[in-house]
Amino acid sequence: MEPLQRIPTLSDIQETHESIAYLIHRTPVLKCRSIDDISGARIFFKCENFQKVGAFKMRGAAGALLRLSETDRQRGVATHSSGNHAQAVARAAKVLGIPAYIVMPENAPQIKRKATEGYGAQIVPCAPTVAARETMLEAVLARTGAVFIHPYNDYNVIAGQATAAKELLDDVADLDAVIAPIGGGGLMSGTALSTRYLSPGTKIFGAEPTEVNDAYRSLKAGKIEVNETTNTIADGLRTNLGEKTFDIISQHIDDIFTVSEEEIVQAMRLVWERMKIIIEPSCAVPLAAVLRHREVFAGRRVGIILSGGNVDLDHLPF
Amino acid sequence: MEPLQRIPTLSDIQETHESIAYLIHRTPVLKCRSIDDISGARIFFKCENFQKVGAFKMRGAAGALLRLSETDRQRGVATHSSGNHAQAVARAAKVLGIPAYIVMPENAPQIKRKATEGYGAQIVPCAPTVAARETMLEAVLARTGAVFIHPYNDYNVIAGQATAAKELLDDVADLDAVIAPIGGGGLMSGTALSTRYLSPGTKIFGAEPTEVNDAYRSLKAGKIEVNETTNTIADGLRTNLGEKTFDIISQHIDDIFTVSEEEIVQAMRLVWERMKIIIEPSCAVPLAAVLRHREVFAGRRVGIILSGGNVDLDHLPF
Repeated sequence: MEPLQRIPTLSDIQETHESIAYLIHRTPVLKCRSIDDISGARIFFKCENFQKVGAFKMRGAAGALLRLSETDRQRGVATHSSGNHAQAVARAAKVLGIPAYIVMPENAPQIKRKATEGYGAQIVPCAPTVAARETMLEAVLARTGAVFIHPYNDYNVIAGQATAAKELLDDVADLDAVIAPIGGGGLMSGTALSTRYLSPGTKIFGAEPTEVNDAYRSLKAGKIEVNETTNTIADGLRTNLGEKTFDIISQHIDDIFTVSEEEIVQAMRLVWERMKIIIEPSCAVPLAAVLRHREVFAGRRVGIILSGGNVDLDHLPF
Repeated sequence: MEPLQRIPTLSDIQETHESIAYLIHRTPVLKCRSIDDISGARIFFKCENFQKVGAFKMRGAAGALLRLSETDRQRGVATHSSGNHAQAVARAAKVLGIPAYIVMPENAPQIKRKATEGYGAQIVPCAPTVAARETMLEAVLARTGAVFIHPYNDYNVIAGQATAAKELLDDVADLDAVIAPIGGGGLMSGTALSTRYLSPGTKIFGAEPTEVNDAYRSLKAGKIEVNETTNTIADGLRTNLGEKTFDIISQHIDDIFTVSEEEIVQAMRLVWERMKIIIEPSCAVPLAAVLRHREVFAGRRVGIILSGGNVDLDHLPF
């Protein structure tokens, strides 16, 4: 496989899916009658909270690393993140025997740092600012020759994230709508592509917190808008779109719904209580949108991508 | 089907399983590589936390109600409980169109009361003492002619609980050991019977909190011992054995392991963090025993019955 230089095609996604199969879980699709009763919809939850490293990010990292040349693999991979992407890159790199360098703010939670180190990655600490992080990443790339694995603005990563919706659509026929959360837009882009290719009649929706509604505003404005704050509990959705994800989302998405912080926490709690599964706040955003917009979803068969389940049990919002 | 007057046979359990199939979920069996690494065992988790009403109790309640005569069904069923058994009886009764009377202490959590009422059961409040509860139950039985559905000391209930281990053994071959939590002993009795019948070479273990180790002491003493306190976070395991469950457990169980409160909370947290599923404290007790007793379980294929997932998210132990 070669690195992708274009928006992933259906066959790119299929190829990625076959190649990463041994690095990921094929996650289950769950239903919950009581949440169906509350929402009025028939919801199919694609459980990426059960994915390796606890989030869909494993798909994109695996997809990107498998497309590296032998020379690049020897040099290694690098990224900056304190979250699920860092762990996914570290884990995929470990399995593939590729050196991994993760630039992480000095104040990142000890538990995330340890988890990433546990996968054998080399942590490169930096000051907790965006500028320091980017400078340090550049230095690491210059020193090691490693390849930067962008968390979302990368066609190889997007092709990997697309495999979650592909599996959902393989497992569940006749969905009226699919909805995913939007942070940097990697999962949303992949979800949109798989859905457009495999089930052209299915509506494609995104969901994001009102507090960080950059994608909502970008779609309306026809150009990339950025967040002015990161004031949301949904810590995976604080990033802005990149030009590749904005392009795909602009082309393929039907609408974006925004939800309040309270609605996010309520939806998260509902899933914990009724489904007995753990999802992180970012992951609850699409269900919050489905519950808020009965007029769109009631009576419909709706696929929700549950993006991840990594929460800090010492700091729960309830 | 007639009510069972004897220790359930294999065919009694099979008959119960077929009859309750439409009232229960066939719950999944999950594995978790990181918990296997930590324990040194190969663990198969039978997920009754995903059962209807969030606990295995649905199996026993359904099994018992389906064996009632038409006359008894018209009179109704009654029990005293503020926990999972009450909800299970209420729900099974609702589906079967049987009146249900639940004696519940006045100080029971509002959320449990509402859930039980939500299934259409009639709540009969009583003072929060054992004596008041039993007096009130007698009064309800006298007034309504309803049949008392005991939470565990009942062969029909035990045959229902036995279907969880039956499914586990149907799904997973060659288990070296099966382990379940012990409260009143209904789940443990059913687990022991199914395992003895279907996989005679498999060891059968129980687990209970050291704080309420009545079953452990009963097994050693050869007679029913009772708890002197109820000082455990595992609120489903505070009850004492009954004579029917003591009899079955004495005959069939290989050993009982006891664990500390701290070990219970650690095991619960481990499941939440690694498996991304919600289990209640009582449910974590067998895993706590497996983690503590490496010398017994390491290198073995171990089936754990995860009994339930009903927790109060406002009062978590971490």
